[in-house]
Order: sequence, then structure tokens, then C-alpha cells
Amino acid sequence: MTYVIGVDLGGTKTAAGVVAADGSVLMTAQTPTLNRDGGEAILDATAALVSGLRQQAGAAGLEISAAGVGSAGVIDADRGTVVSATDAILGWAGTLIASGLEKRLNFPAGAVKVINDVHAHAMGEAWLGAGAGSSSMLMMAFGTGVGGSFVVHGHPLPGYRFVGGHVGHIASSYAVAPDGSALACTCGSRGHVEAIASGPALHALYLRSGGDPGATDARAVFARAGTGDPVALAAVSTVAKAAGQAVGGLANVLDPEVVVVSGGLADAGPLWWNTMTDEASGQLMPPLAGLRIVRARLGNSAAIVGAAALVL
Amino acid sequence: MTYVIGVDLGGTKTAAGVVAADGSVLMTAQTPTLNRDGGEAILDATAALVSGLRQQAGAAGLEISAAGVGSAGVIDADRGTVVSATDAILGWAGTLIASGLEKRLNFPAGAVKVINDVHAHAMGEAWLGAGAGSSSMLMMAFGTGVGGSFVVHGHPLPGYRFVGGHVGHIASSYAVAPDGSALACTCGSRGHVEAIASGPALHALYLRSGGDPGATDARAVFARAGTGDPVALAAVSTVAKAAGQAVGGLANVLDPEVVVVSGGLADAGPLWWNTMTDEASGQLMPPLAGLRIVRARLGNSAAIVGAAALVL
Repeated sequence: MTYVIGVDLGGTKTAAGVVAADGSVLMTAQTPTLNRDGGEAILDATAALVSGLRQQAGAAGLEISAAGVGSAGVIDADRGTVVSATDAILGWAGTLIASGLEKRLNFPAGAVKVINDVHAHAMGEAWLGAGAGSSSMLMMAFGTGVGGSFVVHGHPLPGYRFVGGHVGHIASSYAVAPDGSALACTCGSRGHVEAIASGPALHALYLRSGGDPGATDARAVFARAGTGDPVALAAVSTVAKAAGQAVGGLANVLDPEVVVVSGGLADAGPLWWNTMTDEASGQLMPPLAGLRIVRARLGNSAAIVGAAALVL
Repeated sequence: MTYVIGVDLGGTKTAAGVVAADGSVLMTAQTPTLNRDGGEAILDATAALVSGLRQQAGAAGLEISAAGVGSAGVIDADRGTVVSATDAILGWAGTLIASGLEKRLNFPAGAVKVINDVHAHAMGEAWLGAGAGSSSMLMMAFGTGVGGSFVVHGHPLPGYRFVGGHVGHIASSYAVAPDGSALACTCGSRGHVEAIASGPALHALYLRSGGDPGATDARAVFARAGTGDPVALAAVSTVAKAAGQAVGGLANVLDPEVVVVSGGLADAGPLWWNTMTDEASGQLMPPLAGLRIVRARLGNSAAIVGAAALVL
């Protein structure tokens, strides 16, 4: 059996695991992402993380000579470099992840492959999770942002500029402010799904609808919905409809075999989930009736497993 | 040089041409589609059309032993059959196009390949038209309906149920009736792009905005806009914005190298075109700034050439 290391490099923490050719994860480790220290420091820390796991694996008689990385940011998956990144990881743009790790780990050229972390997450779900066995899978993740990936025969469509999968940046009829104007989106445009269907968008909607100012985040809004707060219930319903509208519409465009929905909002209980799937179903063209819309299954290990698949 | 026949089988007419391996079209012919007479009658007429061209080609010393067909309807491109079709072609659903034509033409099994006509159109544009040389192309067509295709390395993404490319069936913030409700869409759902950005939708918007009841279709609305009719100008502007919103949003999701826009509305002049591209640009995420959005170039021959590419 072949063993490799899969790395999930996010804005706040970096997790890694030894992954067998059948996708089982044998050992894991994690470290904070040095998100204020620049690309070289992050590569040093990542190499140390991988090195430690490699030694652990070696002690168990398993030889590791390749690693796959799912990283935050826009990733040139051909070159293994960071095209651009937000301020969540300062100095990450321009970093040569693949060659930088190969050098630090004494791996041969080509032994490290890199992809965007959302695509890695989707590859994991498509391989061994909720999309296993499907020929095509649309993943949509509703959390701090709204992201996704369209995976065909195991391969995410990367896009020409490696920004494919930004499913949160299409129009939503729900992304409307009380005065009728389109809500500002994190991307700089207006009226997009992410402006109404993300966790922060739920929190903002709750507050501007007159909700309890003591609610400090989306989690608090869900908690209040759970106790019957009518403003919270209405806010959760609206953001879930916005999510479902996007899921159904993109299913019409892409016609995936299955849709996998993940993220903090998808895990927040039946009110969000059932409202989302009802709205999505109402959007579908007749040939898509009965489309399977299922929750992601692998949790945090999805990106580790998916990244490992890059080199397996 | 290899020569094949490309067929564009639409709801009202069927056009075909002899296509060389370099994509040049040597001879063309067309016949009405027998859209009230059922699948077998249509196949008879199509075979006769192909046969005639084949004889013409033979007289010129060109041997033809394969044909590609772009057909209206949901087409199982693996089997060459019609999965479903609208009443625009009665009895088309269930027709075995590939094997039916092979038998009628004495072609060997596998000599006829079939794909949906919108995908064929897009393949033509991606090969020799406005998308030539691009690694990925999103085509969006605004006409009687709103359709499209995402072509990656020359191959349209067909979708699991062969309905991929239904770009008109995502939400539009413009698809709103005067009373605030979402406009009914041809697909049975509500609030979709096709409900506001198609030709019939432009006509309906013009009429309900108080336009001249003497305007009988979208063409008449464009004509009135050309003479300064303010209701027509506003209606054209709204449907063009709806088109642009969809173009920009789907570009964010798919990240194509180029977007090719076709259809009667795209050909109706600068008011629609410039409004559409302005709105699309405003939707784009920063990495997509400068995305090329261009008009289709091949006109009616696009689907013939694209269908031919299936067997070249």
C-alpha cells in the first residue's frame, strides 16, 4: 500500500494526516497557521508538520515520499503556487508552495501537489464521502463565506484563473436590503448569494431585522431560533432559502449527479436544512426532479483526504 | 482530407453541410423539420437531406462516411437518443437518432453521433468561432429562450442527465413582476433569468410597462427602442441587465477563459450589448477583471460545424 501526507492549510490552522491509498487516515497532526508571518514562515511550519508525521510514519514502517496540499487562497494547481490570497494570510500571495515544500522536505520535484482548499475538501467528499461513487458532484459550502466546487470524474474544474467554484458570487433575489438596494458582497460587487447566505450575513440580517443585539454571531442566531425567537426564525429561513435558490439554480446549469452541501450552516439543524432543500427543489427543472441533495460526511478530514488524492 | 456531414436539427428547420476536417463548410442544404409528424418521419427527412449532400459530395469526389447531429431536445450523447423534448417537436422524445440514421444511410454503427443543438453550436464557436484557441468557453445564448454551454478543451459539459448548460434557469434579481412576485419561468419554476432575459420576456415586459400594444414581438420592441420610445428603451435596458447579471455570475462560478454571447438579443445592437457587458463586468470578482465577453461569430453554421466536430 502507498502512503502519502495530505495537508489542509487554512487561515487559522494547518492540519495534516498520513493517508493510505484506500483513503484511510492513519495519523494526524496540526499546527497554527502563521498567518501574520509571511509565506516562508508558513512553509517552514508546514514542512515541520509534514516532517513530524513522516517520522511517525517511518517509525511504523511506512515510507512517505509525496504530499498533497489543500490551501486557502487562489492556487495555481499546475505550478503549486499562490496566485492571490486575502489578508487572512498575510504574505501568502506569490508563495511557491510545491517547490518550497519539496526543497524543505528533500522530496523530488513533482512530489508535492497543491490545490485550493475548497476543491480539496470537495475531492475528499467525492472520493470517500457523500459524493462517493458519483460521476459528478456539485459541492456548496455555507459558512463564513459561500464556496464550492464542481467535481467531474474526481477532478474539480479549476477554472482558467484557478477561481472556478465561487458559487457564492451569483445573483440572489434574497440579497436585498430593507430599502430595496442590493446588499454589498465581500467580493466588491452587490446582490450575490454570499451577501445573504453566509454565517456573517445571517448575523447581520438578524440584527437589522430588530433581533437581540446580544447575539454576537450566526451561532447565537441559530441558538435563539432554537428557543423560538421569531426574528431569528425568520432570518434563518431567509438565508436558508437564499442557499437553496443557489443550489437549485446551479444544479440546473451543471446537472450534477449529486449535490453535497457542507459548512457550519448546513450543520446547524433541520430548520436551515429543510428550508434549503425545499427551496432548491422548487428551483429545479423537471429533468432534475429527485436530484439528491445530501450533507457532507467527512467533516474536517475531507480536505486532508482530498489533498492526499492529488498524489495518490 | 476527411469530410463528414454536420446536421443542425431545430424545431422548425433542419440544416446540414459537408464539413472538411479543417472546419470549412463546402456544401449546405436544408429542409423543414417535420415537427408534427413524429420521430421516424423526421429521421426519414433527415436521412434524405444527408443522402442528398452525400451524393453531391460524391459527385465532387469526396467520400462521406460519418455524420454529426446537433438536435433540439435533451439528447443522450452517449447513445444518440432523445431523452425528452418539448411539444415544439411532437414525438421526438424516445427517438433513436444515431442508430436510426445509421440504418437509413447504410452507415456503420458508430458513424453517427448526436448532441444537443446548443452544445453543438457552442462546440462550433469554441473550435472555429469567437472561442477559437481558448481552453474553456462559456457560451450564453439569449433568444426565444436562454441557453448555453460550458466547453472545456473542446468538449461541452453534458451533465449527468444531459441537461447541463441550462444557464437560463438560475435566479435573477430582475425577474420580478410589478407586484413584487417572482416572474413565472417556462420551466415551471419562478424568478429565473429566462423569465426576464429572453425575447418573449422582453416583449412581455414592454407590454406590461405600458408600451405600444401594436408591438407584436421582441424585434418590434427593439425597433421602437431605436426610435427613442422610452418604454422600449427601459425594457431593453432591464433585460440586458438581467442577461449581464447572469453572464457575470456564471463567469464567477465557472471561470471560463472567454465568454461568447449569441442569440437574437445579442445581435440587436449596442444598447442591449453595452448594457449587458457593463452589468456583467460589475458582477465579476477581482480575479476575473478584464474577462473577454465577445459576440458569437459563426452564425447559423456554428451548430453544423460543431456537430461535424463530433465525428471528425
